[in-house]
Amino acid sequence: MLPFNWPHMTGKELHYIAQAHANGSLAGDGPFTKKCHAWLENNTGCSKALLTHSCTAALEMFALLLDIAPGDEIIMPSYTFVSTANAFALRGGVPVFVDIRADTLNLDETLIEAAITQKTRAIVPVHYAGISCEMDVILDIAKRHDLHVVEDAAQGMMSNYKGRPLGSIGSLGALSFHETKNLISGEGGALLINDPDLRLRAEIIREKGTNRSQFFRGQVDKYTWQEIGSSFLPGELVAAFLWGQLEEARQITLNRLAIWDRYHEMLAPLEASGMLRRPVVPDHCEHNAHMYYVLLAPRFDRSEVLDQLKARGVSSVFHYVPLHSSPAGRKFGKTSGTLEVTDRQSERLIRLPLWYGLSKEQQDGVIDILHQLLV
Amino acid sequence: MLPFNWPHMTGKELHYIAQAHANGSLAGDGPFTKKCHAWLENNTGCSKALLTHSCTAALEMFALLLDIAPGDEIIMPSYTFVSTANAFALRGGVPVFVDIRADTLNLDETLIEAAITQKTRAIVPVHYAGISCEMDVILDIAKRHDLHVVEDAAQGMMSNYKGRPLGSIGSLGALSFHETKNLISGEGGALLINDPDLRLRAEIIREKGTNRSQFFRGQVDKYTWQEIGSSFLPGELVAAFLWGQLEEARQITLNRLAIWDRYHEMLAPLEASGMLRRPVVPDHCEHNAHMYYVLLAPRFDRSEVLDQLKARGVSSVFHYVPLHSSPAGRKFGKTSGTLEVTDRQSERLIRLPLWYGLSKEQQDGVIDILHQLLV
Ligand SMILES: Cc1ncc(COP(=O)(O)O)c(/C=N/[C@@H]2[C@H](O)[C@@H](O)[C@@H](OP(=O)(O)OP(=O)(O)OC[C@H]3O[C@@H](n4cc(C)c(=O)[nH]c4=O)C[C@@H]3O)O[C@@H]2C)c1O
Ligand SMILES: Cc1ncc(COP(=O)(O)O)c(/C=N/[C@@H]2[C@H](O)[C@@H](O)[C@@H](OP(=O)(O)OP(=O)(O)OC[C@H]3O[C@@H](n4cc(C)c(=O)[nH]c4=O)C[C@@H]3O)O[C@@H]2C)c1O
Repeated sequence: MLPFNWPHMTGKELHYIAQAHANGSLAGDGPFTKKCHAWLENNTGCSKALLTHSCTAALEMFALLLDIAPGDEIIMPSYTFVSTANAFALRGGVPVFVDIRADTLNLDETLIEAAITQKTRAIVPVHYAGISCEMDVILDIAKRHDLHVVEDAAQGMMSNYKGRPLGSIGSLGALSFHETKNLISGEGGALLINDPDLRLRAEIIREKGTNRSQFFRGQVDKYTWQEIGSSFLPGELVAAFLWGQLEEARQITLNRLAIWDRYHEMLAPLEASGMLRRPVVPDHCEHNAHMYYVLLAPRFDRSEVLDQLKARGVSSVFHYVPLHSSPAGRKFGKTSGTLEVTDRQSERLIRLPLWYGLSKEQQDGVIDILHQLLV
Repeated sequence: MLPFNWPHMTGKELHYIAQAHANGSLAGDGPFTKKCHAWLENNTGCSKALLTHSCTAALEMFALLLDIAPGDEIIMPSYTFVSTANAFALRGGVPVFVDIRADTLNLDETLIEAAITQKTRAIVPVHYAGISCEMDVILDIAKRHDLHVVEDAAQGMMSNYKGRPLGSIGSLGALSFHETKNLISGEGGALLINDPDLRLRAEIIREKGTNRSQFFRGQVDKYTWQEIGSSFLPGELVAAFLWGQLEEARQITLNRLAIWDRYHEMLAPLEASGMLRRPVVPDHCEHNAHMYYVLLAPRFDRSEVLDQLKARGVSSVFHYVPLHSSPAGRKFGKTSGTLEVTDRQSERLIRLPLWYGLSKEQQDGVIDILHQLLV
């Protein structure tokens, strides 16, 4: 069976973990964590990067940093992972689900303004498949309505919007290093802080609400409980592993891009003959080949196609179940507009195997089978 | 400098991490996580064990599982780590701080009943230094007032109360595998579920509020957002590392116990001459040698003693800063009674180096210096 995903190791990770132990430092915020922070700061231009145990953790830090209170509204797509909404719902926030664009499957920026109310506090662009939302338009709306823009860049590591790394554009950004992502540490994530005013509180919130970071910098003589927080930091095992990946970030991205480009080229005929639609990458977006998906023509039964792929040895999977119709989405969230595109596109989408080291032969196999099934 | 703590590796951890990669499974809930779950279930007798990214995460799961709502009161010691209180404050709960016993530094069970109000929902015994609270008394009070008992057993791995493993006695228990603990995974923890009715919801809450676990067991055909939750699970890196430790749990505990017993014996003369007080272990408690602390006689200046130890090459540290007088403790919590013992004992306490592999010579050095400083 050709797996949908296969986690890549560069070969240095275990060596770095052994080094973390030799440092006597396996808990959070040791030397490897600091190396990763510096790398992220240098490569994204954010004011401060903080590793988190998951992207979910970084999203929860958004809600705490913005002081989300019960009833506050947060505009986001319904076509996203549960964590985008859950992070705000945990604080009593109300996710307001807006439809997506039919081309990029990103938040439809033309529908945002209609969703803004007195209670709106923030807009959360989710950069689907590592392809950027229309940030200039979104930033402009936010500025006019005095709202925060906080980016769910879970899939956006090494992608750019008009030359700017995803996650570094809003006041805060969240990255994921989950094993399904391009650069991995098993579970893992990072918070990018672009608004320097949020730095000190972020440090406290991430360290169980204490000023422990200040204590270890010698700025206070003991650390105490300052405000609500959580344990958002990963241990050095995770950071050391991630360091082995960050060092190879460019090479990993190039390998994935080559696979992505080949899918794109080889599937053009199926698009031309109306069997499927391929992903759309706007000119000003430089993507990271996080995902290769196709939207099947409406006449195909998606479950049937996925089953047939599986029967022929290819693991291909659907993606997000829209949040607005989920039990918790109905309970905690509300919708603005129809979410027609969300419902339609999410039901047609399948993701193809894409991972570092996927061979040409393996890829040809996937493409051949798709031809057999759809033509 | 003799470190206060030095993380021990058994030597198998990196091998298991490499195996996790070979399994193609680095995110949460892979084969190593399942092995750790089974080990914890077999060795504690809990109904279900779930690894978490920290003990803090397990404590936060307590609050979600008990449906803590704003204003709900939770009885706990003030002499504990911030996470015990923070986990409930995050949900709007009110930590009610009760004084500790002068001997064990554990929640004073005779003061609990006076702290109970109409709003009380739970009691959180914290087993300080791996020495159990008076669980029979606490369980009896809880039963009479219809309250939950949820154990903060962060330090209690491999300890027993009347033969029962700590964390397995209340309806829920939380363990820590932070590098400062006996068995480690850098950052890490576990939730022990003793009340089987809480199993299914715990699984959902831990998986970002989704029924993903049911999906992967083939019980539903897609997973969706069901209720609020978080990403509480650690990746397989952490679980594989922990597995290398659990296999040696008994041996690690015996090594630490030998060091603890030697401190206890060699410091008896200092106690006899009134310089310090040694830890007290009630007869019905079998402890895990998590910590060796001493309470300095009131005439000594603790900071001065710690500084002198440091000047002589020994890293010894104080411990919890009581929560009731911290900024967040004052904001979110309330006190019941005076907390006199908490204030007095916490200011006298110092922890001595204790870690797997600490040599007799190193230990003799610590004891000699203490004699020099105090006599
Ligand atoms: C009951 C209970 N319940 C829950 C959890 C959550 O467990 P998780 O971590 O798994 O979520 C714990 C955990 N223990 C924590 C942390 O685990 C771990 O970080 C470590 O703390 P430190 O890394 O700081 O290391 P240290 O060497 O203990 O102290 C270092 C210096 O800090 C100074 N200090 C210390 C304290 C405590 C304080 O308040 N204020 C303060 O100024 C004393 C020293 O000079 O130990 C803590 C107690 C717990 O105990
Ligand atoms: C924008 C955005 N924001 C935030 C975060 C938080 O990041 P962190 O993880 O770092 O906190 C993410 C993260 N991505 C998550 C998870 O990371 C990761 O778990 C993985 O999910 P899976 O492991 O399940 O693996 P898969 O192979 O994607 O799907 C496997 C099967 O599951 C079926 N499925 C799938 C979904 C999604 C769903 O809703 N319902 C559903 O029935 C499809 C398949 O058959 O991918 C998820 C999207 C994100 O994307």
